[in-house]
Amino acid sequence: MQKVLIANRGEIAVRIIRACQELNIHTVAVYSVTDRDALHVQIADESICIGPANPMQSYLNQASILEAARITGADAIHPGYGFLSENAEFAKLCEDNEIEFIGPTSAVIEMLGDKAEARSVMIKAGVPVTPGSGTEFTDLATVLEQAGQIGYPVMLKAAAGGGGKGMRLIKSAKNFQHEFQLAQGEAEKAFGNNEMYLEKFIVRPRHIEVQVLGDNHGNVIAVGERDCSLQQYHQKVIEEAPSSIDPATRDEILQTAIRAAAAVNYAGAGTLEFLYEGPGQYYFMEMNTRIQVEHPITEVTSGIDLVQAQIKIAAGEALSLSQADVKQFGHAIECRITARTPGEITGLHLPGGPGIRIETAIYQGYQVPANYDAMIAKVIVFANTREQAIMKAKVAIAETVIIGPETNLEFLYQILNNRDFNNDQIDIEFLDRLTSGDGLNG
Amino acid sequence: MQKVLIANRGEIAVRIIRACQELNIHTVAVYSVTDRDALHVQIADESICIGPANPMQSYLNQASILEAARITGADAIHPGYGFLSENAEFAKLCEDNEIEFIGPTSAVIEMLGDKAEARSVMIKAGVPVTPGSGTEFTDLATVLEQAGQIGYPVMLKAAAGGGGKGMRLIKSAKNFQHEFQLAQGEAEKAFGNNEMYLEKFIVRPRHIEVQVLGDNHGNVIAVGERDCSLQQYHQKVIEEAPSSIDPATRDEILQTAIRAAAAVNYAGAGTLEFLYEGPGQYYFMEMNTRIQVEHPITEVTSGIDLVQAQIKIAAGEALSLSQADVKQFGHAIECRITARTPGEITGLHLPGGPGIRIETAIYQGYQVPANYDAMIAKVIVFANTREQAIMKAKVAIAETVIIGPETNLEFLYQILNNRDFNNDQIDIEFLDRLTSGDGLNG
Repeated sequence: MQKVLIANRGEIAVRIIRACQELNIHTVAVYSVTDRDALHVQIADESICIGPANPMQSYLNQASILEAARITGADAIHPGYGFLSENAEFAKLCEDNEIEFIGPTSAVIEMLGDKAEARSVMIKAGVPVTPGSGTEFTDLATVLEQAGQIGYPVMLKAAAGGGGKGMRLIKSAKNFQHEFQLAQGEAEKAFGNNEMYLEKFIVRPRHIEVQVLGDNHGNVIAVGERDCSLQQYHQKVIEEAPSSIDPATRDEILQTAIRAAAAVNYAGAGTLEFLYEGPGQYYFMEMNTRIQVEHPITEVTSGIDLVQAQIKIAAGEALSLSQADVKQFGHAIECRITARTPGEITGLHLPGGPGIRIETAIYQGYQVPANYDAMIAKVIVFANTREQAIMKAKVAIAETVIIGPETNLEFLYQILNNRDFNNDQIDIEFLDRLTSGDGLNG
Repeated sequence: MQKVLIANRGEIAVRIIRACQELNIHTVAVYSVTDRDALHVQIADESICIGPANPMQSYLNQASILEAARITGADAIHPGYGFLSENAEFAKLCEDNEIEFIGPTSAVIEMLGDKAEARSVMIKAGVPVTPGSGTEFTDLATVLEQAGQIGYPVMLKAAAGGGGKGMRLIKSAKNFQHEFQLAQGEAEKAFGNNEMYLEKFIVRPRHIEVQVLGDNHGNVIAVGERDCSLQQYHQKVIEEAPSSIDPATRDEILQTAIRAAAAVNYAGAGTLEFLYEGPGQYYFMEMNTRIQVEHPITEVTSGIDLVQAQIKIAAGEALSLSQADVKQFGHAIECRITARTPGEITGLHLPGGPGIRIETAIYQGYQVPANYDAMIAKVIVFANTREQAIMKAKVAIAETVIIGPETNLEFLYQILNNRDFNNDQIDIEFLDRLTSGDGLNG
C-alpha cells in the first residue's frame, strides 16, 4: 500500500492520516468547499476538493471520491466512521475499481448491515440475541404462551410498527389482555395490520461492546471490551474500558465475539454491540463493520494501534498478535466534546500531561461548520484504576477552554462528578435520568 | 497535605498543578510580573505575585516565596526543577518554617550538591566513579605510573585549573613527557601552581541516568533508566527510555543506583547520572535531588506518576510499589522544543493522537518572555519499539506548528531523521558531530 485516500473529515481523518504517516504511506485528504482550511487538509500529503458543504454532494458522493482516488493514484481508501464507512455499495464500487477499501468485504458489510440477516447469522453462530417470539401472531392465547416462555417484562410490538405505535411494555400477565387489545387496535389503525410480536425487555442494561480484529488468513482476536452505556439521544457521550461487568460473563462475551467474527470470516476492525443485563445475560444488538469513535480507549488499555491494524490487514498482512498476546492494563475514559452551536473558535486550551490523549481537528481560529457532526474533540484519559481515571478526566475537562461555540463541557463535568457514575451505577438509561433529574445522586 | 505552593513556572508548574489537582490538593501558583498571564497562573486554584521578571527577585527570591506560602496557608512547597529545587538553604528554610519541602532533606541536598563529597559518599557505597589519580603531583615519574594504572587515554588536569588551562588529553605514554611539561608550564603561568592530576578519559560515552524513588520508611526503588546522550551546550535535547545498553550492565547500574540512594537514606524522586563506556564500564557523575525535565519518558514506560509519587512521599506515605512491581514496557522519546527568540505565539498547532503526550505552558496568543529558560514544550512519544517511537516522533514534530518565535523544530527533525541516530549509534558527542557535519551519516 503506497497511498491512502481518507474519505472522511474531522478528528478521524486526522487520526488516520497520522497512522498512515507512521507507516510511511502517503495520504490524500478529500474535503468539501467549507472544509478547505480544515486540519486534515493541512496535514495530509495531498488534498482534493470533492464538492460543496452538503455531505450528500461531497463526503457521501461516491463518484467524486472514487474519481479523487483515481486522479491522485491512491491504491486504497479509508472510510473512517460514519459517511460511507458501512456502505456496502461503496465498498463494492471500490472492489470493482480495484481500489482497496480499508474494511471488510462489501458482502460482509451488506450481511451485517441487514438487522434481520445479522440476527440469524448470529443465532447460527451461537451468539445470544434478544429473546423474542420470532413469529407474528394476532391472538391472545399465543401471546400469553410466548410471553411466559420469554419471561416478563416483555415488549409487545407491532409487526408493521415504527415510531412507538402499537408498542407496549408488559410487566406481568396481569392486565395483558387489556394492553394487548389496545396495542392491536393502535397497530390496526396506524398500519392497517394487527399482527404483533414480542421481545424480551431488558431492564436497565449496560451497553457492552467488543472490539475485534480479523485478518485474511483466518485469524480473529478480541481486543477487550468497552462500556458505552452513557448515551443521550442514541449518541454515546462518555465511554470507558474495561467495563466492570462480572469477569465470567466478560470472558464469555469476548469468546462469543471471536466466534461470531470468525463465523463470517471477518477481516478488519469490527465491533459487536451487546446489551448486558446481568451475569450470564447478554444479547447481541449489532456488529459495526468499521472503526468506532471510541476506539482510543481500547488502544490505550491494550497498546494496540487499531487504525494501523486496519491498514495492515487491508494490505494483506496477518495479525501480528495472537489472543494470548493481548493484554489489558489500567482504565481509560473517553469524553466526547460537542459544539452545540457552530462558529469560530476564538480561544482554545486543551489539556495535556500524563495519561491524556487528545483527538481533535480543531484549532484556534477554526470555524466550526454547521454541516457536520457536532463532535469536535475527544479527551481520552488513562490511569491505573477507574477512580484515578475519573479524577484525571475531571481535572482535564475542568482545564479545557473552548471559546466561541457553545459546548457540552459542563455536562461532561457534571457526569464525571456524579456520585452514581463514580460508584459505577450506570446503564443505558443513566443520562436520561440525569437530565430529567430523576432519582440520581448528584 | 492540603495546599501546595508551586515555586516554579512554565510546563513543570503546570505539570505539578495537574498532579496536585488529581490528588485533591489545592494549589498556589507564584508568578513574576511578566508571567501574570502564564498558564500555570490560570489553572492554579490561587496565585500570588512574588516580584519582577528577573528571577533573582522572583522565582529565586526565597523570602518572597516563603511569605507567599504563609499568606496562602500552603503547607508544602514543590520546587519543580531549576530555580530553588536543589538549593539546600531554601530547603532548610522550609524545614525551619515547618513547611514541607517536596524533595529530600536539606542535609541530603547539601551533601549531594557538593561534587567532592558526593563522590566520596558514592565510593563508600561501592558506586563506580571516574578513575583518577586522587592526589596531585608535580613529577613525571609519578604521573606516568598513575596513568599506567588508570589506563590510556587519560585527561591531564591542573589542580588549580579551570577554563581548559593546563588540560591535555593524553592518548599513550609516547610524548607524555613533552605534553606534561607544556601543560605544567601553562598551569604555572595561569594559576601560579604546577600541581597536576589525572582522570580517566571516557571515549564517546553515553549519558545513562537512573530514576529512583525513596520514601521515609527505608524503601528505595529504581524506576528504570534513561539515555540522555543527545546534548548540546550541556543541555539535553532528546532523551529516550529505556536505553539500549547491554542488559547485564543495565541491571547492574539499576542495582548500583538503589544501593547509592539507600546509602544516603534518600527520600523523594532523584536521578543518578552515569557515563557509560561499554559493558561493565560506567561511572557516577552526580545525583540530582529533584524531578528531571525528562521524567515523562520514565512515566510512560512504567505507568508510574513520579510527581504524584514525590507528593505522596513528602506527605509521609510509604511507596506503594516494590521493585518487583516496577515494569518497563515499550519505548519513549522526549523532544524538547525551545524558542530561540522571545515573542508572541501567533499560531500554534501541537500534535496529538495515540502515544503522544504534550507538556507545555504555551498557548496561542502567549508571549514567550526573554527572561527564562528557552524550553517551551516537550513532545513525548511512546510506542512498542524504538523504531516505531522514532517514526512517531518524526510525524509529531513534522506536524507541529509554532508561529512567532524561532524554534528548534527543524533541528529536532534532523536528529530524528539521522541514520546514525536511527541505528542507535549515539554518545554524548553525537550532537557536536552532527552540528559540525563531521563524519555523520545524515
